[in-house]
Order: sequence, then structure tokens, then C-alpha cells
Amino acid sequence: MNKYGLHGKLKATVGNGEQLSSILLEAAKLVSTAKGCQLYLVSKDKEDEDAVWVTEVWSSKADHDDSLKVEGVRELISQAMPLLDGMPEKGQELDVLGGAGIK
Amino acid sequence: MNKYGLHGKLKATVGNGEQLSSILLEAAKLVSTAKGCQLYLVSKDKEDEDAVWVTEVWSSKADHDDSLKVEGVRELISQAMPLLDGMPEKGQELDVLGGAGIK
Repeated sequence: MNKYGLHGKLKATVGNGEQLSSILLEAAKLVSTAKGCQLYLVSKDKEDEDAVWVTEVWSSKADHDDSLKVEGVRELISQAMPLLDGMPEKGQELDVLGGAGIK
Repeated sequence: MNKYGLHGKLKATVGNGEQLSSILLEAAKLVSTAKGCQLYLVSKDKEDEDAVWVTEVWSSKADHDDSLKVEGVRELISQAMPLLDGMPEKGQELDVLGGAGIK
């Protein structure tokens, strides 16, 4: 069965990109303990210093959705929300066929 | 130093998405042997069965560029090119800060 991939942008208000990415790096530590988490990358957009990209791979969409129940994740989300410049766009969903670098 | 990320789409001519993704999965095996390759994922676009996404993370852009010298990669590229629906768009370059799932 293919894995569930998600690639999405979070846009911070001006000057808050750095703070947002540190919160997301913290989230990565928590989320990586969740069942089915195979990749949770936090990246800066080369063209917009207040835009942060999260690239995820999960064994299934259900595992991804369940990860919101991991202790501490909701607190981090509540820290991140006030830094966002409007609601986050829905990420690009991908059917991960395989490749190198994940289990 | 941040890692070099690349997320790009390759669009096949109608009906050739499957074949293109198999070539790219072969490429993943070769490229993963290249210095600095930390991730080379091949995914199907959920909305377009002839579009294939490649998501890469490298220790540096230089390592990425050098990977084209890996034996066999050029042959695979030459197999893939005739299947493409026009020139591939330049991928999205990312400054990978960290996260979970790669070394």
C-alpha cells in the first residue's frame, strides 16, 4: 500500500517565520513518536522568509490524522496559530510510491 | 548548515505516468548511493495520474548536482525524457531546517 504524503506551506506574519519554524521543529520531535510517522521535515521557503514548509510521510492518512492526539501537539499548534498570516492552505496530498531515505 | 531540498513535478504524456514513476523509482536506487543523498521520494499526484513528484533532500546543492554523474543516472534520464509532456518545471528549492525521518 502506498504511503500518505503531505507537503504544505504555513505563512507567518511578517518577521515571525523564524519563531514559527522553531515551533514546528519542536512539533517534529513529538510527531515523530506517533504511529506511522516516517518523515516530518521543516523547511524555509527560499523566496519568502516568513513561509515555512512541512513535508510529511505517513504509513497512512489515518495515522497522520491520529497524530493530532499526541500529547503536546495541540499545545504547539495553539502556540503557532497566533503567528500565522491567515488560515493555512490545505497541503498537497501525495501518494508516495517509494524511493530512498525512508523506511 | 541547512540541507538542500527540492520538490518538483514531472508530467508524463497521457497514459505514461506509471512508466515514468517506475523509471524514477529505479533512479532512486542509483541516486541513493550518491554522496549526500538523504531522501529521494517518488510520489503520484492525487489529482493527475500522469504527474509524478520527486522530493529530495541533500546535504548540499553541490552534492545534488554531482549526483547526475552517478553511473546509470544519465541512461535513466534518457529513458524518461521521451515520456515527458514538455520540459520539466524547475522544482521548488527548500532550505531544510530539520525535523524527523532523515539522518
